[in-house]
Amino acid sequence: MMINPEKDPAPDGVTVLRRELAEEKNRHLRTLADFDNYRKRVERDAAACAAQGKKELAGDLLEVLDNLERALAGVTDERVRQGLQMVYRQFLDTLCRHGLEPVECVGRPFDPGEQEGAGYVEAARFPPGYVAEELSRGYRFNRELLRPAVVRVAGGR
Amino acid sequence: MMINPEKDPAPDGVTVLRRELAEEKNRHLRTLADFDNYRKRVERDAAACAAQGKKELAGDLLEVLDNLERALAGVTDERVRQGLQMVYRQFLDTLCRHGLEPVECVGRPFDPGEQEGAGYVEAARFPPGYVAEELSRGYRFNRELLRPAVVRVAGGR
Repeated sequence: MMINPEKDPAPDGVTVLRRELAEEKNRHLRTLADFDNYRKRVERDAAACAAQGKKELAGDLLEVLDNLERALAGVTDERVRQGLQMVYRQFLDTLCRHGLEPVECVGRPFDPGEQEGAGYVEAARFPPGYVAEELSRGYRFNRELLRPAVVRVAGGR
Repeated sequence: MMINPEKDPAPDGVTVLRRELAEEKNRHLRTLADFDNYRKRVERDAAACAAQGKKELAGDLLEVLDNLERALAGVTDERVRQGLQMVYRQFLDTLCRHGLEPVECVGRPFDPGEQEGAGYVEAARFPPGYVAEELSRGYRFNRELLRPAVVRVAGGR
């Protein structure tokens, strides 16, 4: 059998081809691994995106919830008040079922991470530095702060 | 130069390597294309997932919206009624800003795709087969039906 360097690669050509094949296989494996990682991340992200959509809507509805509570406070007719109180509870419960959670603060130490201080107040019931009064309710959504509570803190004596 | 089939591949070996390399390149190109398509789909899906989350929450809040409207109807105190009417509008507007849309139906031809018929009614104002009365409002979310309207249809004369 004749070797024709024009038509058949010399052993050098084989070495080059083998190297190219190994490199190409490596590249392919890397791409497969990237693809797999990406796919796993995307599955996690889909759930996070749906939660993000809910969070946006819930955040915009907090003002409605506040205003309903305020309107409720002005109602004197007991029958109407009870009906509206039920609507308010249903509103809050529905939001909570999707991830909303009120920030409990009265009677707890002031926490600047979740609460905005609006001054001090004389409050014999609470030690100094504890939240004595909640002016506006704070909320978390899926454990992340959505809106801080606005509070008055018990002053020192 | 000598050909040693034990140490250096014969031209047959080169052919095999060349075919393997071509196949491997092909596989890699296919994976890259799959990856790219997947990435584009995921970007579209992220927006769709957020919208889906909003749709789920909005769908669960329709009952609250209905109940607030019902409670409103029972309020006689004009000042309270106006306050609650504003809260109701703000509630509806907020949901609509995120994708909700009421199904308009009174005075239009009955459409079984978006409306549930709850019988016929005598209605001189509308031609037979037109919606004469809305018993429960229907809603779309991002143009898809979320809840059908429940209506009474004008009967024939």
